[in-house]
Amino acid sequence: MTRNRAAVLHAVGDVRIEERPPPDPGPREVLVEISAVSVCGSDVHYYEHGRIGDHVVRAPLVLGHESAGRVVARGEQATRHAVGDRVTLEPGVPCGGCRECRAGRYNLCRDVVFFGTPPVDGAFANLVAIHEDFAFALPDSLSDEEGALMEPLSVAIWACRKAGVRAGDRVLVTGAGPIGLLAMQVARASGGAELVVSDTNEHRLGLARRTGATRTVTPGDELGEVDALIECSGHPAVLAGGIAAIRPAGTAVIVGMGPADSAEVPLSLIQNREIWVTGTFRYANTYPTAIALAASGRVDVRAIVTGRYGLDDAEAALRAGRADSASVKVMVLPGLTPP
Amino acid sequence: MTRNRAAVLHAVGDVRIEERPPPDPGPREVLVEISAVSVCGSDVHYYEHGRIGDHVVRAPLVLGHESAGRVVARGEQATRHAVGDRVTLEPGVPCGGCRECRAGRYNLCRDVVFFGTPPVDGAFANLVAIHEDFAFALPDSLSDEEGALMEPLSVAIWACRKAGVRAGDRVLVTGAGPIGLLAMQVARASGGAELVVSDTNEHRLGLARRTGATRTVTPGDELGEVDALIECSGHPAVLAGGIAAIRPAGTAVIVGMGPADSAEVPLSLIQNREIWVTGTFRYANTYPTAIALAASGRVDVRAIVTGRYGLDDAEAALRAGRADSASVKVMVLPGLTPP
Amino acid sequence: MTRNRAAVLHAVGDVRIEERPPPDPGPREVLVEISAVSVCGSDVHYYEHGRIGDHVVRAPLVLGHESAGRVVARGEQATRHAVGDRVTLEPGVPCGGCRECRAGRYNLCRDVVFFGTPPVDGAFANLVAIHEDFAFALPDSLSDEEGALMEPLSVAIWACRKAGVRAGDRVLVTGAGPIGLLAMQVARASGGAELVVSDTNEHRLGLARRTGATRTVTPGDELGEVDALIECSGHPAVLAGGIAAIRPAGTAVIVGMGPADSAEVPLSLIQNREIWVTGTFRYANTYPTAIALAASGRVDVRAIVTGRYGLDDAEAALRAGRADSASVKVMVLPGLTPP
Amino acid sequence: MTRNRAAVLHAVGDVRIEERPPPDPGPREVLVEISAVSVCGSDVHYYEHGRIGDHVVRAPLVLGHESAGRVVARGEQATRHAVGDRVTLEPGVPCGGCRECRAGRYNLCRDVVFFGTPPVDGAFANLVAIHEDFAFALPDSLSDEEGALMEPLSVAIWACRKAGVRAGDRVLVTGAGPIGLLAMQVARASGGAELVVSDTNEHRLGLARRTGATRTVTPGDELGEVDALIECSGHPAVLAGGIAAIRPAGTAVIVGMGPADSAEVPLSLIQNREIWVTGTFRYANTYPTAIALAASGRVDVRAIVTGRYGLDDAEAALRAGRADSASVKVMVLPGLTPP
Repeated sequence: MTRNRAAVLHAVGDVRIEERPPPDPGPREVLVEISAVSVCGSDVHYYEHGRIGDHVVRAPLVLGHESAGRVVARGEQATRHAVGDRVTLEPGVPCGGCRECRAGRYNLCRDVVFFGTPPVDGAFANLVAIHEDFAFALPDSLSDEEGALMEPLSVAIWACRKAGVRAGDRVLVTGAGPIGLLAMQVARASGGAELVVSDTNEHRLGLARRTGATRTVTPGDELGEVDALIECSGHPAVLAGGIAAIRPAGTAVIVGMGPADSAEVPLSLIQNREIWVTGTFRYANTYPTAIALAASGRVDVRAIVTGRYGLDDAEAALRAGRADSASVKVMVLPGLTPP
Repeated sequence: MTRNRAAVLHAVGDVRIEERPPPDPGPREVLVEISAVSVCGSDVHYYEHGRIGDHVVRAPLVLGHESAGRVVARGEQATRHAVGDRVTLEPGVPCGGCRECRAGRYNLCRDVVFFGTPPVDGAFANLVAIHEDFAFALPDSLSDEEGALMEPLSVAIWACRKAGVRAGDRVLVTGAGPIGLLAMQVARASGGAELVVSDTNEHRLGLARRTGATRTVTPGDELGEVDALIECSGHPAVLAGGIAAIRPAGTAVIVGMGPADSAEVPLSLIQNREIWVTGTFRYANTYPTAIALAASGRVDVRAIVTGRYGLDDAEAALRAGRADSASVKVMVLPGLTPP
Repeated sequence: MTRNRAAVLHAVGDVRIEERPPPDPGPREVLVEISAVSVCGSDVHYYEHGRIGDHVVRAPLVLGHESAGRVVARGEQATRHAVGDRVTLEPGVPCGGCRECRAGRYNLCRDVVFFGTPPVDGAFANLVAIHEDFAFALPDSLSDEEGALMEPLSVAIWACRKAGVRAGDRVLVTGAGPIGLLAMQVARASGGAELVVSDTNEHRLGLARRTGATRTVTPGDELGEVDALIECSGHPAVLAGGIAAIRPAGTAVIVGMGPADSAEVPLSLIQNREIWVTGTFRYANTYPTAIALAASGRVDVRAIVTGRYGLDDAEAALRAGRADSASVKVMVLPGLTPP
Repeated sequence: MTRNRAAVLHAVGDVRIEERPPPDPGPREVLVEISAVSVCGSDVHYYEHGRIGDHVVRAPLVLGHESAGRVVARGEQATRHAVGDRVTLEPGVPCGGCRECRAGRYNLCRDVVFFGTPPVDGAFANLVAIHEDFAFALPDSLSDEEGALMEPLSVAIWACRKAGVRAGDRVLVTGAGPIGLLAMQVARASGGAELVVSDTNEHRLGLARRTGATRTVTPGDELGEVDALIECSGHPAVLAGGIAAIRPAGTAVIVGMGPADSAEVPLSLIQNREIWVTGTFRYANTYPTAIALAASGRVDVRAIVTGRYGLDDAEAALRAGRADSASVKVMVLPGLTPP
């Protein structure tokens, strides 16, 4: 393939399909022809607002960081994958040498190069180059589309690890968007026995039940006691309500990003019950786990896919969530011929 | 019920059915009519050798510690269960006050009173009394027989906790007896993605495959790399071979008891790969987890049951393993009318 | 001793010295003649407000829970201490059987019986009875006064355990009251290399420097980066500022109780840096550590004592903090003849 | 400096002083003029046997990996240190990208480049080049000699981290060589309250007492109960004896390398007491801690230095331990004019 078309964000609400020179894979990099990219809430946020916190889109930017495809060329010294191999891409390449990297928490590396985050271009394109260590071989049992979904699945795995979910646990997941739904599935795959999901959207609660939730609730319902909370709604009031349901010495993991930097939290509960509260920022060392869980059928990532678009329709994909309350996760498939 | 018949071990190979006065439940104790007791390897060992290590049978002893039944009376201040409730019994009641108890590792309490361990009588009987906190309500979805099996399931859960099994892990279980088979199932329920079971007994390996093992091997087969080893065979050579398969910083948990107090271990591997090695002694805080896993269908404890006997046939139950290589776990059902 | 005088709180601001019948030590209890009790902020709070949260003083109450003394009699089966032994008293006796107790977090037992917390009388008295397992032998190298201070030292140890302080760490302690000062000392004894203490009271900061703080600051000063925060001021703004100083993946432990149940917390920092936040409620399994640290000279508990009172002056002791900004920790010594 | 003299091991017992071309610092590397190198047991082992396990000296090799010096030149993009800065060198540079590196256990990286380990030359030389991230600035309070000793101090810190030493602990260190002595000091700095050191060499036990051991013993003496064992003798019998002294759920860390790959270990104790056993291989993320502990005076690394040699006398330094039973740690100081 010599053409490299990309969906480029020029300004809020302005995505253009453009042809760009194919990337040249550097040392230890592979060039990957992208076949599937799923749309993340952060892509939508950049499209709608042009920024996320301190990350501001200042120049035309290719969004997209949940991707999979096929190796089509290799840079010098790249030996891990053969041309033709199907791979899923971990979209953030950390520096490998700083204090955070050395300590194994490379997701907190300040010098990470992360797809689709200004000023780094992402994967809404035909071709991307990435360090071979951040491309992971896809087994035959997983489709490219599932490969792309290893990224949100990683977010879910990381949340469950922080929550310390173990066999027999009772887990509350607040917010049944893509991450919440996958977090519930991972909690289930980790042995979670009671899996309570809360949301206001009945479509999503139905999907939660079909994929393993043992109970779904809407805000205000009685929650019961849980071992861990995985907060994916981004609403401080939901977080506070969830913390109130946690057993003594249990854990709350904040995954959803709210609108404000600060929020009111029930400190006296946290003290009196010695609850642990933390948050997640991306993930580290999750891709092998994600592939193992999906390939062994423990987690069904396809269940959350509600729409598919060609690259030319990337903007429609970015708008799908606003357009349809039943939309959960949509895919951009750059290999699809535009209709 | 006023009669209390029990199977009493008088000497090696000498079990007699005797009538004993019904126990009188003390403060906070419940009197339980036993309906199911599964036979443990330690029961068989006492029957065959009259001792396990420093625990020597010096007086007639009722064996049996894996039991379930129905509450028939309550001592003073016992309010946790109603008469008629079905319960599974955690067979060791620790002191609650020593250093180990206070630290949450009550399985290491020196003053524990444990069923069927000299000089404490066990549950091969119609009636036993136990502290109400160590009787756990059985949900309707679990039979009494399954209730009895919460004990070996607890051993398996404890092994998996020590092994730190988490979603996506590769786990090697060596020895496919009842504990090994249940440990494999718990590892699977905890998200284990590769579950390798080794044994020399093809019956047991077939059972392992039917209950979720992804691969079964016999000694000498290539093992591949694993995150954790759960050693249930009691053979030092198997332990050494298993340790050699563990990835750097992985964990080996020794559950099976070997014939000798000491054994040769590959220290240089443990050092060069910084492997963690530990052992398990009974379990702590596992019964709620066991009940949750079995009740939610994550673990199928019935799959390992290969025989059932009345109380009068307790001795035949103790001999079943020697008599039949396809025997895995046998039950004594004191409520069964002898044939 | 047959007389048992006690300082009894009858209402807000109303403490009376009364004679009460000597307690009768029950099974496994010891009767202890109290020689030293230190005054805790919670004692002062009950004295000033008659309640702490849901704990309301409804009947005359003897305050005081930081105490030491001498065994003068033993109940049945009490064998751990001899009459005449000097002991420090862990003031909360948990049930020993509930889920929290079994899990080793007995400080979260709902049925704990805790000195000086309504409706349980405390140690501002000549005599108290307590379970022998909660009396700890004092070595000759520790005075009775130091023995009483094993209680606040326990709070400090617990905070450092939760904070995971380890050798070489940089620790920020906000609030230089008795707990903050001791937490700094324990952090230092645990290998903490940078020990920053913040407060507005220069007397207290001077004491912090004399007992090992490497730097003291006042609110608004640059804090630098730390591995852990131990918040002892009870001010939400101080907590928020302290969290902002924590390195990625570091820990904040909330020890100080603020006036409100909820407070604003910088959630986006907690997420972006994956900071862990928790709180402490009393302590568990700390007394042996406290005694070891004090007896080996690693922690100097006497350094924080700023006043001593006889039992008849218990009310003056409760008022000392308000009366003198240089007051840190005051002792009530029931054996002292009133002047 | 343009000359680069080095002590080169040509064969067992054959060390020659040779002039070599100065290394050329690559991208992000610094060129360091070595002022102090301490001699490790592994250097001596290579000198005496020409190999350690699978690591065989096949070509002339410069030994030495415990070093410090001054930056004299910088490669491209090396910005972390200025020319003239004093630095201590972490001697192993891992790949930064493999599974072990990403997980934060870079000491287990298979592609590490480690000074003085065949075929990589070490620091018994005037000049070495190293990645700037593995050179750590030395504060003024630490001499170059102390800087070199940050390496064995790292081994000791790593052992204490694995042992989980915390405030108030009782720690047994078996083997009072340089590592054992430093491990005892780190355990003390971490709050260890009882520090028992065992050895057969009275010189070393005296040094242990002078640097903080609370008790020294010789094999066969009663050990008492400890929370953790740090085994630095390399003798399996000492390991077994040490394990027998560990409390339930305590930890044994094997640091010393024995002559054989396997050894007899008391498995039934490990099981019955649920003891954790692991080993250490070098260290990870320890240099900042080492510098903090030494600079703050918590650990006195100079206390173990018993001899100093010029580079021309490197062979005498390698023989010092055999020649003098009072020798503990000797330094090679390449800047010293030969006498």
